[in-house]
Amino acid sequence: MTVTSPRGFVAAGRAAGIKASGALDLALVATEDGVPVPTAATFTANRAAAAPVQISRDHLRASGGRAAGVVVSSGNANAATGARGRSDALRMCELAATGLGAPVESVLVCSTGLIGIPLPMGPIEDGIPDLVASLAGSEQAAREAATAILTTDSGPKVVLLNHPTFTVAGMAKGAGMLAPNMATMLAVLTTDAALEPAALADLLRIAVRDSFNSMSVDGCTSTNDTVVLMASGRAGVADPNVVVDVVTEACVTLAGHMLADAEGASKIVQVRVTGARSDGEAHRAARKVVDSLLVKCSLNGADPYWGRVASDLGSAGVDFDMDRLAIAYGGITVCEGGIAVDHDRTAVADHLSGSLIDIHCQLGLAAGDGVVMGVDLGHGYIDENRTTS
Amino acid sequence: MTVTSPRGFVAAGRAAGIKASGALDLALVATEDGVPVPTAATFTANRAAAAPVQISRDHLRASGGRAAGVVVSSGNANAATGARGRSDALRMCELAATGLGAPVESVLVCSTGLIGIPLPMGPIEDGIPDLVASLAGSEQAAREAATAILTTDSGPKVVLLNHPTFTVAGMAKGAGMLAPNMATMLAVLTTDAALEPAALADLLRIAVRDSFNSMSVDGCTSTNDTVVLMASGRAGVADPNVVVDVVTEACVTLAGHMLADAEGASKIVQVRVTGARSDGEAHRAARKVVDSLLVKCSLNGADPYWGRVASDLGSAGVDFDMDRLAIAYGGITVCEGGIAVDHDRTAVADHLSGSLIDIHCQLGLAAGDGVVMGVDLGHGYIDENRTTS
Repeated sequence: MTVTSPRGFVAAGRAAGIKASGALDLALVATEDGVPVPTAATFTANRAAAAPVQISRDHLRASGGRAAGVVVSSGNANAATGARGRSDALRMCELAATGLGAPVESVLVCSTGLIGIPLPMGPIEDGIPDLVASLAGSEQAAREAATAILTTDSGPKVVLLNHPTFTVAGMAKGAGMLAPNMATMLAVLTTDAALEPAALADLLRIAVRDSFNSMSVDGCTSTNDTVVLMASGRAGVADPNVVVDVVTEACVTLAGHMLADAEGASKIVQVRVTGARSDGEAHRAARKVVDSLLVKCSLNGADPYWGRVASDLGSAGVDFDMDRLAIAYGGITVCEGGIAVDHDRTAVADHLSGSLIDIHCQLGLAAGDGVVMGVDLGHGYIDENRTTS
Repeated sequence: MTVTSPRGFVAAGRAAGIKASGALDLALVATEDGVPVPTAATFTANRAAAAPVQISRDHLRASGGRAAGVVVSSGNANAATGARGRSDALRMCELAATGLGAPVESVLVCSTGLIGIPLPMGPIEDGIPDLVASLAGSEQAAREAATAILTTDSGPKVVLLNHPTFTVAGMAKGAGMLAPNMATMLAVLTTDAALEPAALADLLRIAVRDSFNSMSVDGCTSTNDTVVLMASGRAGVADPNVVVDVVTEACVTLAGHMLADAEGASKIVQVRVTGARSDGEAHRAARKVVDSLLVKCSLNGADPYWGRVASDLGSAGVDFDMDRLAIAYGGITVCEGGIAVDHDRTAVADHLSGSLIDIHCQLGLAAGDGVVMGVDLGHGYIDENRTTS
């Protein structure tokens, strides 16, 4: 069980016919009584944000941060679909709201799939009422919902964390823009901790910053990325400082599932930058290294050439002094004071031949630090992404 | 003939022994009388700038924009080499200056190759005096100089433009960070037009902006990128507004040679953005599309999925309104008003199957426009860059 494990939630997944394959393609996570509960969401920063993102933003604002349900369709992103797309996304909310007996603005909507093709509304008009009718708190219902949001994922991505006084669960799809023929990173989390909408929004912002926004598969930002967190309150009031840690851990776990599922990638890399002018600069520098085509290729080849890392740090747009730079692979320092230092080459080669690579860059300027996770670049990524058909 | 074609210049290329292969690896372009002439240069924006970049910047400042020669070594970048690297780069200038009978600050230096390894100074101590001794205005000397600056390039990259009253010539190596085991883009241009240092610097800035800085192979910025332009004045005073056009054309030609030589790439793409809020925003948006891993993969696969282009424009950090967006491939509009429009799919497929792809993005906001050239991403790029050994 996942999203239905925290008290107060039900879920469902259906094959409505959006996907030609006949696979599950409609999901709904809702409160079991249809009553809106405190809900927070973070959305893509892409200015080409898809219709469901626009509608969900509006609804969350109109409802004052409360939702009774989140409806998700997969197989079509409903992006680059203009006014019709917004009308279709709104209609999805209306259908779910009617079924739940909730106001329309208390339903959020997410879609994932190809861009630029209008949603097939026939299957959706029939599918959402069926979906509402099949809502359940069962393990099977949760699994079907987690499956119905997938596109090219190899399998469901779920997390369940039981704290002594409350529970956090979540389901997700994607890996950044890993498999862009069915783009987008989506996550729906539930908790039974009681938190007000403002506190919930604050803690989700932190959790997303330290998880999904600290990983990068290819530096691309989808039009549909959405993370939703609903809090039923059934477990009673909880300390937000504790909840934030558990929600962050849940998000980190889901982000890890995404990286591990990155097609065409054989290694996960963690780039840690310390000694930067600020945490923000450290994060930016780490992301520059993670997204560097040259570094990604060298990880694929297990190559210990740290010159590329130095060059990326120097062009990251952050304060940088080559003479203070130190770089370590798997804890073994290869560069110090900006120049090569003697080191155990066999140990570095051993580390680079593994599947989890650790690169630590010490800028030696101040106390800013940041970590970004990513993946290598191999033939498989190109093969996966060279065509959408 | 190239860099020796404009009146007043000599050149030489030698195999000094920096490259283990025994290939040519030291080049010198100088004034034929050793007298400094107005010279401008643009250098990498990378804060991990290599020692030769640091020394050349200092020399150009100290000389008030005048140089008698540019010495270039290939096979080792003299980057991430600390104080010793600066001392070695300075020594290269001293050796050339002594040979030319010119002040040390009137010699510029460039290096290209691997990062983090001290320069082998033995071959250089012997090589530069030999290089000076073999300076000549001959076609062979120019060809040897153009060959000695190469690393993984498939052959010399030269340009010669004869204007009725003056001549512009140039030699270059690299393709952005195309082949980073021997990184760097270098170009040395000569002209016999007479221009003052300040005017020369202004026009080179424009020429570089509209050529080298408007192309991107992989979005990486090398530690050693340098473009030098020397003006002998032997052809007499020329209108800077005319010279800028000819120098820009020379730089565009050299940049085109680099893109065409991009290993692992099968197609060149030109992304034109119009209707942006400013020329700067148009350029930034075009670069975002050119550097997008997903777009690069789709070019490799000749895939007409424009959703990726729209998504990249939306996340380029520029003003953007999806509802005003139009996209055309090879002049055939596939998206208008932010949504798909009917179009001749066969014509788009034909265009995408070619080797020069044109993508035009009309943002519909204001009059800003910009063009950035790039290449696709295929297996060859990964194969070329996954190891440096």
